[in-house]
Amino acid sequence: MAAALALASRTRGATTPNPNVGCVIVREGRVVGRGWTQAGGRPHAEAMALAEAGDRAKGATAYVTLEPCAHVSPRGPACADLLAASGVARVVAALGDPDPRTDGTGFARLSEAGIAVSTGVLADEARRSMAGFLIRRALGRPHVTLKLALSLDGAVSMADGRSRWITGPVARAHTHLERSRHDAILVGRGTWETDRPRLNVRLPGLESRSPLRVVLSSKPPLKGEGDRPKGGGGVAPRGNLSSPSTPPSALQAATSPCRGGLIHITHPTAVATLPADHLFVEGGARTAAAFLNAGLIDRLLLYRAPIVIGGGRTLPDIGLGALAEAHGRWRLVDARALGSDRLEVYEAAREA
Amino acid sequence: MAAALALASRTRGATTPNPNVGCVIVREGRVVGRGWTQAGGRPHAEAMALAEAGDRAKGATAYVTLEPCAHVSPRGPACADLLAASGVARVVAALGDPDPRTDGTGFARLSEAGIAVSTGVLADEARRSMAGFLIRRALGRPHVTLKLALSLDGAVSMADGRSRWITGPVARAHTHLERSRHDAILVGRGTWETDRPRLNVRLPGLESRSPLRVVLSSKPPLKGEGDRPKGGGGVAPRGNLSSPSTPPSALQAATSPCRGGLIHITHPTAVATLPADHLFVEGGARTAAAFLNAGLIDRLLLYRAPIVIGGGRTLPDIGLGALAEAHGRWRLVDARALGSDRLEVYEAAREA
Repeated sequence: MAAALALASRTRGATTPNPNVGCVIVREGRVVGRGWTQAGGRPHAEAMALAEAGDRAKGATAYVTLEPCAHVSPRGPACADLLAASGVARVVAALGDPDPRTDGTGFARLSEAGIAVSTGVLADEARRSMAGFLIRRALGRPHVTLKLALSLDGAVSMADGRSRWITGPVARAHTHLERSRHDAILVGRGTWETDRPRLNVRLPGLESRSPLRVVLSSKPPLKGEGDRPKGGGGVAPRGNLSSPSTPPSALQAATSPCRGGLIHITHPTAVATLPADHLFVEGGARTAAAFLNAGLIDRLLLYRAPIVIGGGRTLPDIGLGALAEAHGRWRLVDARALGSDRLEVYEAAREA
Repeated sequence: MAAALALASRTRGATTPNPNVGCVIVREGRVVGRGWTQAGGRPHAEAMALAEAGDRAKGATAYVTLEPCAHVSPRGPACADLLAASGVARVVAALGDPDPRTDGTGFARLSEAGIAVSTGVLADEARRSMAGFLIRRALGRPHVTLKLALSLDGAVSMADGRSRWITGPVARAHTHLERSRHDAILVGRGTWETDRPRLNVRLPGLESRSPLRVVLSSKPPLKGEGDRPKGGGGVAPRGNLSSPSTPPSALQAATSPCRGGLIHITHPTAVATLPADHLFVEGGARTAAAFLNAGLIDRLLLYRAPIVIGGGRTLPDIGLGALAEAHGRWRLVDARALGSDRLEVYEAAREA
């Protein structure tokens, strides 16, 4: 299952609105097929792995990070049917699929075909792996990661806005890797106009994974643009927009195209309308605070440099009434060194 | 030597102006004597360990964290002479003693007595252990630790000053342990007047280790006090003030007694006059910034709670001209979990 999760991570941020699933088929202790949801959402992981396994699937075990789908789509057959026809003896899944078209039906169809089914293996890791898909299903919005590059005293820049550089090259490269795992990246208008960030992925081999770019601004669309929404401003959404949770009308109503292929939103809650299930919020401090204030941050990436700035720009008000309210909201899930900097990853602590 | 360093840590902050030294005497693989500098600076570690070893010192090896002293004082004999008379066969030291009354003479006297001498064992750890003594010798001031209890976004309190509580009980207990390792504790006048901190050690068994209390304020001495220095305000300095680097006249000129047994200083550089070699600076943000601005912080203790405050009080200006100047000044030397909080310890990176 760990191998299947590693495969699933390859297209995280590139399969919206489909989940990024991984599948490994093992026969007599040897891997005979590997698959992961392809960019754009198809083929599915199981179809790819079964195609590789061919006849070797007979009697094998399929490890899959999500319940195989039970619905036939114009873009491909149901994976539960493919598995049933393949002759696999056993399917081990991490999670059930909350999509109402599957939600238990996939497992039932496998069992009816005489396949042994078990589930719940590495379920927490799978939830993390497919967080975008699951949050979209549960809350109708993308999974949102907030990235902050900070000094030890919490400054994101000098008082005058200078922030080049707080963190070193290893941490900055890691940020680009994180960008490639998201299908949209958002900055505030201030950061956009001051820094003119390219917001792309500048890592060899991953340039094609540059996400959709989004600017948050309560002001009207950036100059040079009309008032009339044009449906994405020339940026081709990478996912399939047919998901019931992102109707094209809502997307067009809340987003405006901007020059250079940007999407413009006026409030953090409008991220629900983006054709993206993994959103990366990169700055600046006011934008970060707006998302925190709206309760829209699921994951916090802190890149911390071993420097003290003093009097720099820090996170503004997030609507906290008392210190006690601040506690219990964040859980450290990863910490590592990146050159002389440290990365810490926190997840929002939610009621189960 | 690690055992000797552990013994030396017992009276860190209680031996000023003497160094906190540890000594272990080993004969045929068994520990026959253990000693550490006693509170107030005497007896010395070697005298205590030799007294325990008695005749068993003959032919033994003495591990000592600092070169044995070579000078006779009214308060006790020279440790180099005691070791020579004891019959030990070998002395292993971590560091030479920079005190001009010893500085190589201790080792020479041991060699003349036919004792094998080696030095440099765990020297870095010993430097850290006796940082107060060594910084006092090198720079004529105490070793200064700055403690900050912070949210993830660098806030030391809410915007209105509320800071109870950012960190949890484990981190707060650790702060008391750190207080016990210092012989003076300093806060700014704002913190003193707002929080009325007791600034003592409230850990069972360590209450007697509460440090000297110091308030930094550029304003005149706190009300209720006369203008005339009274030499310590009723606080009995715990160390021996005869060290040449802390003449009583300088102490009295720069410090004023305050009510409740406080010492009042008007500028961070006046800490040089305190009868303390390990100073703990506890807050608030303005005081921290004043010490950082003056380049007087040797060690940074960050207690970090997994909370985001937003718009809280953060460290004010420390005189940084450009981001590049901030880099290379701090080195992470320890990180650990304290309940749900994290402690990080940084040391100032100095030229060797």
